[in-house]
Amino acid sequence: MATELTDHELIAKHRPTLDQALEAIRTRAYWSPHPEHPKAYGENGSLSLAEGKTAFDALLGTRLDLGQPGTDDWVGGEVSPYGVELGVTYPHADVDVLLPAMRAGQGAWRDAGPELRAAVCLEILQRISDRTHEIAHAVMHTSGQAYLMAFQAGGPHAQDRGLEAVAYACFEQLRTPAAAEWTKPQGKRDPLVLAKEFTPVPRGVALLIGCNTFPTWNGYPGLFASLATGNAVLVKPHPRAVLPLALTVRIAREVLAEAGFDPNLVALAAERPGEGIAKTLAVRPEIRIIDYTGSTAFGDWLESHARQAQVYTEKAGVNTVLIESTDDYKGMLSNLAFSLSLYSGQMCTTPQNLLIPRTGIITDEGPKSYDEVVAGLARSVDGLLGDDARANALLGAIVNPDVKARLEAAAALGEVALPSREITNPEFPDAVVRTPVIVKLDGAKPDSEAAYMSECFGPVSFAVAVDSAADAVELLRRTIREKGAMTVAAYTTSEAVEQDVQEVCLEEAAQLSLNLTGGVYVNQTAAFSDFHGSGGNPAANAALCDGAFVANRFRVVEVRRQA
Amino acid sequence: MATELTDHELIAKHRPTLDQALEAIRTRAYWSPHPEHPKAYGENGSLSLAEGKTAFDALLGTRLDLGQPGTDDWVGGEVSPYGVELGVTYPHADVDVLLPAMRAGQGAWRDAGPELRAAVCLEILQRISDRTHEIAHAVMHTSGQAYLMAFQAGGPHAQDRGLEAVAYACFEQLRTPAAAEWTKPQGKRDPLVLAKEFTPVPRGVALLIGCNTFPTWNGYPGLFASLATGNAVLVKPHPRAVLPLALTVRIAREVLAEAGFDPNLVALAAERPGEGIAKTLAVRPEIRIIDYTGSTAFGDWLESHARQAQVYTEKAGVNTVLIESTDDYKGMLSNLAFSLSLYSGQMCTTPQNLLIPRTGIITDEGPKSYDEVVAGLARSVDGLLGDDARANALLGAIVNPDVKARLEAAAALGEVALPSREITNPEFPDAVVRTPVIVKLDGAKPDSEAAYMSECFGPVSFAVAVDSAADAVELLRRTIREKGAMTVAAYTTSEAVEQDVQEVCLEEAAQLSLNLTGGVYVNQTAAFSDFHGSGGNPAANAALCDGAFVANRFRVVEVRRQA
Repeated sequence: MATELTDHELIAKHRPTLDQALEAIRTRAYWSPHPEHPKAYGENGSLSLAEGKTAFDALLGTRLDLGQPGTDDWVGGEVSPYGVELGVTYPHADVDVLLPAMRAGQGAWRDAGPELRAAVCLEILQRISDRTHEIAHAVMHTSGQAYLMAFQAGGPHAQDRGLEAVAYACFEQLRTPAAAEWTKPQGKRDPLVLAKEFTPVPRGVALLIGCNTFPTWNGYPGLFASLATGNAVLVKPHPRAVLPLALTVRIAREVLAEAGFDPNLVALAAERPGEGIAKTLAVRPEIRIIDYTGSTAFGDWLESHARQAQVYTEKAGVNTVLIESTDDYKGMLSNLAFSLSLYSGQMCTTPQNLLIPRTGIITDEGPKSYDEVVAGLARSVDGLLGDDARANALLGAIVNPDVKARLEAAAALGEVALPSREITNPEFPDAVVRTPVIVKLDGAKPDSEAAYMSECFGPVSFAVAVDSAADAVELLRRTIREKGAMTVAAYTTSEAVEQDVQEVCLEEAAQLSLNLTGGVYVNQTAAFSDFHGSGGNPAANAALCDGAFVANRFRVVEVRRQA
Repeated sequence: MATELTDHELIAKHRPTLDQALEAIRTRAYWSPHPEHPKAYGENGSLSLAEGKTAFDALLGTRLDLGQPGTDDWVGGEVSPYGVELGVTYPHADVDVLLPAMRAGQGAWRDAGPELRAAVCLEILQRISDRTHEIAHAVMHTSGQAYLMAFQAGGPHAQDRGLEAVAYACFEQLRTPAAAEWTKPQGKRDPLVLAKEFTPVPRGVALLIGCNTFPTWNGYPGLFASLATGNAVLVKPHPRAVLPLALTVRIAREVLAEAGFDPNLVALAAERPGEGIAKTLAVRPEIRIIDYTGSTAFGDWLESHARQAQVYTEKAGVNTVLIESTDDYKGMLSNLAFSLSLYSGQMCTTPQNLLIPRTGIITDEGPKSYDEVVAGLARSVDGLLGDDARANALLGAIVNPDVKARLEAAAALGEVALPSREITNPEFPDAVVRTPVIVKLDGAKPDSEAAYMSECFGPVSFAVAVDSAADAVELLRRTIREKGAMTVAAYTTSEAVEQDVQEVCLEEAAQLSLNLTGGVYVNQTAAFSDFHGSGGNPAANAALCDGAFVANRFRVVEVRRQA
């Protein structure tokens, strides 16, 4: 436990992991310190699957008292997409008390320096990792992800992204030395000599605005990037996904206190129904950094109105798959079927528009018409989700009524190639589980365009018939430029088409996956290697994770003296 | 010449300099490849002082044709603060023609990659260095700086800042490898293997909005940071300081063309009197990056309105010197006298408010009353500028009538401790040359506060009587927080006061110089070692130069394929 560790020991404990993270970022080779297999947990202080479930069950119906100053009420009301009422209540903050309290410990946190801050962050991540199964249940019952996905994406993958942010932050702060002697020759006269000190200083209090679907995965990068650069962090979770971040905040506060820092450096801002506290917090003068994942409308509002803060947003986009030709038709269809089905398409990285030439495509199984490709994909999805147990394990639950409404409305947008099917979850009969719908649209028709040029978040994809590969490339360009994209995928055996698609992605700054037919999917990115978003198109103004994501969360103050 | 160099040779030629720059940034030790002595020029292709003067004279009254597309007119009208009409005309651009032309070459510039782009930038900087004396004359006759200062600050020091930006940019882009293999173990199954390519891509066209007083020093960092990260750069000089940047653009275009790139990657946007083209350009969709030095009003406007661009601003601030005690009274006074006099205080880094306890200060010459300190400083300035030739060499000329008007109005703000004196410049009798005014103000009086809490750009400083050191520290904090500061200086032998001042500078993010009594002045910063501004207080939203200054000028696009 950190209580028994000196600062030096805490650094020594975590420095090897930090160094490995820095090396992974540099090589972009595969690496992760966080086990991806559920059975890897249960020893060395970590909770097993069963222990995690027990811990989660024990939380239900309780008050999660974080010991925060300025708590004026207790709020809560999460209902799991699986039908369970969580019944957990959280502190509601008087921000006029909480925000000053969060600033009180910043001087000591700043003086700790980048390396000790990184070690404390890594200790927090390790404690989070130990409770992966508990948090995974919390993610499952707020996001609607199936358990294995909630475990992986909400556990090790989220922790990887948090660690990645710490590594970038630590490196960035240590680029400038703590001290330097500057000696400038003056010919025959004595040289000018100055002693200089350089201190990374925080911007202030950072605000993390969490999302419903990936509270930890999308939350940890900003949380840890801000904390590692010396800022206090106020965590404002999505009202339907408070628990995973509240548990995270609790662990962070425990570790901070044990390490001798003010626990109020990390705090939770839960809200009453309809309170809309994010809008109030975002323009508070104390808030100097904001990380946000969610709708384009509110992301744009933050970018325009929170002028006192550095604002990092991940908003909506329209993800495209260009299907021109393939030498592995079956592999392509099954790869795409998985991408469309995973978590009912409720990922910001799920493909929406499948651009297919109306004249058909060339495959290793011979030419396939537009109709055949769409029917093949529909069959592939049907096959993947034919077994209800497997379907439940892949689809999870529909996260909220808006997604369900969009899914139901989608069938009216065009000819339905694959209707959505209702699946029963025997364990959670109240869960809304739906298979994806695929709707055929003619890319040339204006009323179709209204559909495919908007984000239809959820298990809806459009098989858009285009005139040619060139037409598809131009539509891809226009879609990224006007609507943004978190991901682009393409299937082609033509070098020329591949070149054209690449050029569009380079010019419009979109991340491209080419010819994925195996066990890697366009909607997945791996920390330390893949960038999530580019920060260069309308879908997001930042990428996870790069130098730009951390470099402006702190400033360097120089003190120079005559030596 | 670059025409005879292959890409590889161009890289080989400049890589050692780049590596030295990167090492200097890492250690912050003194380093510069650009000679500071006027006589160091004249060999190996560089122009001597006399040759530079001849070259400058040959420019007067000519049309500077840069061969830019979309030139619809010729504009100009610069009059030197020394009274000379330059008579140079520049291309006026139809931006609807010029901007698309600037984008045409971006694909090839992107494909060149970070290292070749850096080498081309270093070749541009070397050609600029060769013409330092010519550009120095242009800086002198637009900014009003005395020749030696125009030569040093506008030549080697500006080139250092440009090189520093290139080094940061190159490093940042090369942090992510061009390619990686990613192999993820899958237990007993075959591993997942992906081949990944990472390409730094530009944001678009960058706009550099130049300033009157330091066209090259303040212009080169943004220009080279944007160019080195793959962007085209449109240079919009201050209408009174076009020539130094026009010559820079001409050299950049020559080198780009010789190296096989489109010269339109760098272009000039000169304007008609009163045209206000910056406001139009700043919100063009093609413009994705803006660098700006100038008034707070327009800087704030840019930050609020140019939402499509990354905006880097250096605006106004109020610089403070806190004078509490010293063990080198004479050294302190002469150091401050120089800082107040250099370039008639027309630097964003010149101290304005001298905070002195009304009870006086302790010095190595015994206690000195507030009045004695102010009188001592006045005598020191008088002594420094007593000789007209020396005064001219230090003061330069008043850059524009607004500065002269402010200087004249300042005398009415309080009791004048040192009146401004008119100096004749025998070589340029039309030059407006003035010594600094020092005005006494009582820090406690509200009408004084109106004066000292605003930037009074020019040779005006306020000796502000404060109640105590603690009072001074609090006024310092308030000044930085509300008005911003490019520099802070303090003189104290008290460890407690030093701690308090440091803490304020760390909390409010201001750069601090302590007890400077020798040949380094608070208004000077050295590239590769000192940060210019912090980017963390209202005076500037960016620092020269750090990771944050370059990291968001490009994005990284990843293309991944199954291997």
